[in-house]
Amino acid sequence: MVTAVSSLALVGHKLSENELQQITELQLTATEDDHGGVIVEMNKPVEPEVFACTLRASISLWRKQGKRGVWIKIPIELVNLVEAAVKQGFWFHHAEPKYLMLAYWIPEGSHTLPANASHVVRVGAFVMNEKREVLVVKEKCGIFLRTGEWKLPTGTVEEGEDVCTAVVREVKEETAIDTEFLEVLAFGESHQSFFQKSELFFLCILRPVSFDIQEQESEILAAQWMPWEEYLAQPVVQESELLKLTADICLAKKDENYSGFSPFPTKLRFTDQKSHLYLNYQDLKRQ
Amino acid sequence: MVTAVSSLALVGHKLSENELQQITELQLTATEDDHGGVIVEMNKPVEPEVFACTLRASISLWRKQGKRGVWIKIPIELVNLVEAAVKQGFWFHHAEPKYLMLAYWIPEGSHTLPANASHVVRVGAFVMNEKREVLVVKEKCGIFLRTGEWKLPTGTVEEGEDVCTAVVREVKEETAIDTEFLEVLAFGESHQSFFQKSELFFLCILRPVSFDIQEQESEILAAQWMPWEEYLAQPVVQESELLKLTADICLAKKDENYSGFSPFPTKLRFTDQKSHLYLNYQDLKRQ
Repeated sequence: MVTAVSSLALVGHKLSENELQQITELQLTATEDDHGGVIVEMNKPVEPEVFACTLRASISLWRKQGKRGVWIKIPIELVNLVEAAVKQGFWFHHAEPKYLMLAYWIPEGSHTLPANASHVVRVGAFVMNEKREVLVVKEKCGIFLRTGEWKLPTGTVEEGEDVCTAVVREVKEETAIDTEFLEVLAFGESHQSFFQKSELFFLCILRPVSFDIQEQESEILAAQWMPWEEYLAQPVVQESELLKLTADICLAKKDENYSGFSPFPTKLRFTDQKSHLYLNYQDLKRQ
Repeated sequence: MVTAVSSLALVGHKLSENELQQITELQLTATEDDHGGVIVEMNKPVEPEVFACTLRASISLWRKQGKRGVWIKIPIELVNLVEAAVKQGFWFHHAEPKYLMLAYWIPEGSHTLPANASHVVRVGAFVMNEKREVLVVKEKCGIFLRTGEWKLPTGTVEEGEDVCTAVVREVKEETAIDTEFLEVLAFGESHQSFFQKSELFFLCILRPVSFDIQEQESEILAAQWMPWEEYLAQPVVQESELLKLTADICLAKKDENYSGFSPFPTKLRFTDQKSHLYLNYQDLKRQ
C-alpha cells in the first residue's frame, strides 16, 4: 500500500483523503492464489485514474515479491476500469455475462496461466420403454424447427454439472420423464460450432422410471413415445451417416452386448472432491 | 446507415465528414448470422461517442428488421469501446486474449443465445513399450513439481483440436516420442478446476512408434521409460484411489479384453464436416 501511495506521489499527483481511502481498499482485495500469483476482485467503484496508478504500484510490489500471474476480475458494473487495466498490459482471459477476467504475467518469458475454457459439452438421451418406443421431441427453434424431425432429447451441460446429471435433468425439463442414468454409449466432437469454440457430445442411455409426458413450453413443440422403427424411418435419419450410426449403437446396447462407459465413483486427487470415472465397467469387472 | 445518421441528427449532434465516414464503415461490418441475428466485428478505431450513437441507431434498425441476437466483437486494441456497448445494454459473452465478445438480445423475453464454453478438456497418455515400460514424465511447475512424481504425459486439448490428435501432439511435444492413437479408455470430470469452469479428462492408450526420448525443455524436468511395477510402486500412486483405478484400467487394456472407445470416422450433420464418433468398436462389430 505504501508503494501505491509513493507511486502516486512520484508522478506528482496530490492525494486526496478519498483517493487514499480508495487505494487502501483496492489493495485489500488482492488475495494469493495457489500458483504464486494474486487475484484482485474489484467490487467497489473507483476512479479509473486512481485504479491505473494503484495497479501500476501494485505490480511493482508484486514483482518484488516474486509473484507470477495477476488476475483482475472486473464486474460489468465497473466496466469503466477495463481500459486502464489493458493499458497496463493486461489481456482478456475469459468473460461471463456479469464479469470480465483480465490477466497479466510478471516474470520474463511466456506465461503458464491455464487456458480459457474451450469446449461446450452437450448430451443426448436414448430412452426406450418396454414397448420399444423411444422418447423423442420436436424443437421449437433453431435448425431442428426447419427439419421438423423427431429427435432424441438433447441439452447443454452446465458449468459444475456432471454429464450423468445433466442428461437426466434435460430429459426431465423437456418431457417431464424421470430417468436413471445408465451409460455413455459414445461421444463425438465438432469444431467451430460457435465462434472458435469446440463441442463434445455425449450419447447416453437412460432407463425411464416414469412415463407420462409433459412438454416444456419454452423449447419443445411436442414430445412422444415413438415406435423405434418409425423413428428410424424418418428421412433425416436415413440420410444422415451420423444418425444411422448412433441408432446402430443404441440398438446394439438394447439388444446385444454393447458396453458403454458407466460412472464409477472415485475421489479426485489434491482436493478429495467426489467424482466419477466413466469406464467400461462390464469389461473391468470381468477380470 | 440513414437511421444512424438521423439518430445523430436527432440528438442535435453536428456530423463532421470524419464522423459520417466512421458511421458508414461501422454499418458495413455488420453481417447476418444463421439464427436471425447480426454480428458486428469492430476493426477500426472510432470515437466512443460516435460508436455509442451508431450502435443505438443500429439497434433501432435491427429491431424494425426483426433481428434477434446482436454480437459485437471488440479487439483488445479498441478496448475504449467496451464501456459504450455495456451502457447500451450489452453484456459480456466470452473473451479470448485478443478480443471481447459482447451480446445483446432484441426481442422480449429471455435470450436463446448459445452458452459460453464451460469446459477445459485435458488428455492423459498411457504409452507402453514391449518391455512393459511405461512412458512417464516429471513436470517442471505446478502441483506436480511439489509431489515430484513420475506421471503419465498430460496436456490440454486446444480449441478446434480432436482429442485423438491432441494426445498424440502432447506426447510428441513433451517426450519427442511418436505414437499412434488407439482408444479412449475412460474419462473423468471435475469442477471448479479453475474459476467456475469444469474439466473433462480423457485417459487414452497410444502405441509407441519411436522410442528415443527427448524432454521438452520448457515444461518437462525429465522423461523416461519406466518399468510398470516401479511406476505403480510410487507412494503417490498407491495413495490415490484415482491413480490406482486408472492403472487398473490401463492394465486391463494391456493384458485383458478391456474395450475402450475408438474413433470411428463419420460426417457431421448440416455442415458435412468430417468428424469422429468415439465408440466401443469391438462390441459394435461383434453384431
